[in-house]
Amino acid sequence: MAHMTDIEIARGANKKPIREIGEKLGIPYEALLPYGHDKAKVSQEFINSAQDRGNGRLILVTAINPTPAGEGKTTTTVGLGDGLNRIGKKAAICIREASLGPNFGMKGGAAGGGHAQVVPMEDMNLHFTGDFHAITSAHNLLAAIIDNHIYWGNELGIDIRRVVWRRVMDMNDRALRQITASLGGVANGFPRETGFDITVASEVMAILCLSKDLADLQNRLGDMIVAYRRDKSPVYARDLKADGAMTVLLRDAMQPNLVQTLENNPAFVHGGPFANIAHGCNSVIATTTALKLADYVVTEAGFGADLGAEKFFDIKCRKAVLKPAVAVIVATVRAMKMNGGVIKEDLGAEDVTAVKRGCPNLGRHIANVKGFGVPVVVAINHFHSDTEAEIQAVKDYVAEQGAEAILCRHWAEGSEGAVDLATKVVQLAESGQAEFAPLYPDDMPLFEKIETIAKRIYYADRVLADKKIRDQLHEWEQQGYGNLPICMAKTQYSFTTDPNMRGAPVNHSVPIREVRLAAGAGFIVAMCGEIMTMPGLPRKPAADAIRLGEAGEVVGLF
Amino acid sequence: MAHMTDIEIARGANKKPIREIGEKLGIPYEALLPYGHDKAKVSQEFINSAQDRGNGRLILVTAINPTPAGEGKTTTTVGLGDGLNRIGKKAAICIREASLGPNFGMKGGAAGGGHAQVVPMEDMNLHFTGDFHAITSAHNLLAAIIDNHIYWGNELGIDIRRVVWRRVMDMNDRALRQITASLGGVANGFPRETGFDITVASEVMAILCLSKDLADLQNRLGDMIVAYRRDKSPVYARDLKADGAMTVLLRDAMQPNLVQTLENNPAFVHGGPFANIAHGCNSVIATTTALKLADYVVTEAGFGADLGAEKFFDIKCRKAVLKPAVAVIVATVRAMKMNGGVIKEDLGAEDVTAVKRGCPNLGRHIANVKGFGVPVVVAINHFHSDTEAEIQAVKDYVAEQGAEAILCRHWAEGSEGAVDLATKVVQLAESGQAEFAPLYPDDMPLFEKIETIAKRIYYADRVLADKKIRDQLHEWEQQGYGNLPICMAKTQYSFTTDPNMRGAPVNHSVPIREVRLAAGAGFIVAMCGEIMTMPGLPRKPAADAIRLGEAGEVVGLF
Repeated sequence: MAHMTDIEIARGANKKPIREIGEKLGIPYEALLPYGHDKAKVSQEFINSAQDRGNGRLILVTAINPTPAGEGKTTTTVGLGDGLNRIGKKAAICIREASLGPNFGMKGGAAGGGHAQVVPMEDMNLHFTGDFHAITSAHNLLAAIIDNHIYWGNELGIDIRRVVWRRVMDMNDRALRQITASLGGVANGFPRETGFDITVASEVMAILCLSKDLADLQNRLGDMIVAYRRDKSPVYARDLKADGAMTVLLRDAMQPNLVQTLENNPAFVHGGPFANIAHGCNSVIATTTALKLADYVVTEAGFGADLGAEKFFDIKCRKAVLKPAVAVIVATVRAMKMNGGVIKEDLGAEDVTAVKRGCPNLGRHIANVKGFGVPVVVAINHFHSDTEAEIQAVKDYVAEQGAEAILCRHWAEGSEGAVDLATKVVQLAESGQAEFAPLYPDDMPLFEKIETIAKRIYYADRVLADKKIRDQLHEWEQQGYGNLPICMAKTQYSFTTDPNMRGAPVNHSVPIREVRLAAGAGFIVAMCGEIMTMPGLPRKPAADAIRLGEAGEVVGLF
Repeated sequence: MAHMTDIEIARGANKKPIREIGEKLGIPYEALLPYGHDKAKVSQEFINSAQDRGNGRLILVTAINPTPAGEGKTTTTVGLGDGLNRIGKKAAICIREASLGPNFGMKGGAAGGGHAQVVPMEDMNLHFTGDFHAITSAHNLLAAIIDNHIYWGNELGIDIRRVVWRRVMDMNDRALRQITASLGGVANGFPRETGFDITVASEVMAILCLSKDLADLQNRLGDMIVAYRRDKSPVYARDLKADGAMTVLLRDAMQPNLVQTLENNPAFVHGGPFANIAHGCNSVIATTTALKLADYVVTEAGFGADLGAEKFFDIKCRKAVLKPAVAVIVATVRAMKMNGGVIKEDLGAEDVTAVKRGCPNLGRHIANVKGFGVPVVVAINHFHSDTEAEIQAVKDYVAEQGAEAILCRHWAEGSEGAVDLATKVVQLAESGQAEFAPLYPDDMPLFEKIETIAKRIYYADRVLADKKIRDQLHEWEQQGYGNLPICMAKTQYSFTTDPNMRGAPVNHSVPIREVRLAAGAGFIVAMCGEIMTMPGLPRKPAADAIRLGEAGEVVGLF
């Protein structure tokens, strides 16, 4: 079995009908909107009816800074969920949906890996339940409405040089990054420069993932700034009456999707905002719904804990009033070695010294997460080349930080390999140690919030920002946006803004290149470098080899 | 009940679970891929298993040239389907899917009207089962692959001035009609002019609707011409290895969608190609599947019989080897009056003379359809202001043409109002009169095919075309495309190319402005004027008023 690929294991899954998965959570079949026999959305009526119930315990799975070795954050999320079910807890997992477009560039991703996966894998890498298509439609409807408004007389006085709302497509298409639109004469409008981002970068995606219900969704959509007038006053989506129609397009997309793990445990897979220019977590509605239906809800955040967990805590938990009970930080021996300076090719050889040299990266993440008042356990995601001495080195290091590191073998063994981790998580959760608080208060000045994150989470000496950027932040404070949290857009590979600085670097500064207001999503993006919001395809795209096989199965996607 | 709107009637529908609708056609629940509880796709395995069965009888519903009075072609299709079921026949209907984008401009359409509708209406006007989104994705993946190929060295030698593959979006967005893409420097590719069409105008849509299975689909996708080299030799989608990945994206979209009429009879709603630059019929796979499962299959074609029925016969039936048994031509007293010169505001007053004056429009369509060897019955779709004398005038006229006109009240009465029509259709179908043959043979030269349609169907004196166009047609004949049928793109409002020429005009000529090769779909488009392939939004778009109501229902879409 160890030699099977993820897709082979996923195809061999003994899936149960989705109605049975719903039953595990007490969802009656009428409250499920099926998409095929193995996917369903949960109806809003049912979600409403569950609001009086208490909440289960929320477990965050986060990780060290990602390395090319791979850490297995989603794999651990799935494994822990299955492990909790195995030890008798009613547990559900909540993860993000995959974006379709990138799968035709690089190979598509499994949701998890080995014997800790969510299925149906093919659907999840293709159209799934159509949520991203709905977001694309809603986003582009607003774009069409803006240009249409200008075309028919521009009553709102939009400065066509200052339309900030671009279009989106769920595709890797560099040719659309920058375009001139409305060419071809009078009937096609006023020519102007614009472009496309990939759908997951849409503010609509971030909003869908942060809204507590459809009314909240519509309100946030209306709050979005789409353009400015010559006097620089903002034009909102609401001014264009686009919020109602966009909400209609997103009605079904707002409902959480239910699928299952390989061990037939419930998994909510819903929403997928960028983890750099957005907050990188699955939807609030999926998480809050799961908390009403399960005793334990295991979720994950994008990238490493410096970006993912910080945003999970300071944006998602703050805004949705979630109280995480435990955080699991995923690490691997291999990743510790890479943080200790070993190159990928040499990872196979035992090197306890390098492991020890790399551990301070993990140590910082432990301290950071504890700083939010959330108890931590480290999951060492086992790899067959790990040696006893290397594993022990990580365990010893983590113990010195006042936490425990637990070896997990869910990749190879499924839930059985995650029993120890699950047991520890339950122990921490039931201990009532958690006293979650965000890193900074709402009323802290915006620039100070950025500084707080940079210094407390990244261990930077200072934040560098032009007067123009500081003035912009002041202006937003004047306009009433000062209470928003910050969404840092920074490389995920380092605590610094330099992707090559592994480990636990000191003496670095964080330059802010640009700030953006996501008035609907409700955060301010601080960009510490060039962030690509529309990827391109590689020289030899995965699409070349993707096709249907003899039995109608998808070949080449994985 | 007569005062209820279509949407009110649709919302009051006593819908049955889609599994029960499937059961009516002998489709087991495992063979249905449900989308919610009232929509489902039929699995390919099941379709394959039904191939040994005999075929039911195929009934085409077509119409006179459309007028602003409205004829009710879909309403009659639905009413006839329900009527056939009422008189004890196992009948299914096959109609097209609606495009999402235009609903935010003008109000969305019902599928049918009054008590002859297909439900769920809201879903059918929004994302439905995601087919159009899949087509959009597949189309735009190919576009991204083309620009990516050029970016990475252009091994195929594509002339970037001659890339004919545009992008698509299911949105009315005039700003995208003509754009310059790949701006912004080296990393974004080679700047070039291009643009977007609406999704229903995509050749992928036409292909999906003409393919008999997934293998055929992939083959046709590969055959599409996407660009030319400097020596004008074509570059095919297959050369870019895009056909396999596109097929994967379209795998689910290829499966026919099953829904129901208000009377819980099965309705296949699948595909929706433009009726001008494409053939305007629902998918071949839906029609052929329905023919295996039902004794009577009622389908419709776009626009009036001069365009819709001609393309249904000469493109769809020719290519899919379908043998229509009966054609129903829908007419209304009001439309006859408009053809007779009455303006819309005066339609309420009795005017038998005007009815008689307008009837020759109907007469030509009767003769044309009979010319294909298909027996005809005329359905007079009843409107409350129609007088006995007016109705009799139509009946008398039709009798003179050697056919029968039957008054239908399905709009007000449902199936009960279509019993006479259904009875007549069965009588004609069982008489075995039909001897269907297309209008022209495959091996007729292309220009002669255009002339044949123009003279025999439009009653034109001649076809006008520049040498350039004739040369182009010759070139395609040399390249092996001479056997393709013609897809005329002409105004639907007249037999001529002038939309204002109602009735039965003579002494007119048909100017061909442009010809296009749809090598994958398998037809040559002859364009008789400017055809808009990307609509715009009106000054006051329907989107302004679209929102969710208190109960979560969609307001303002209808």
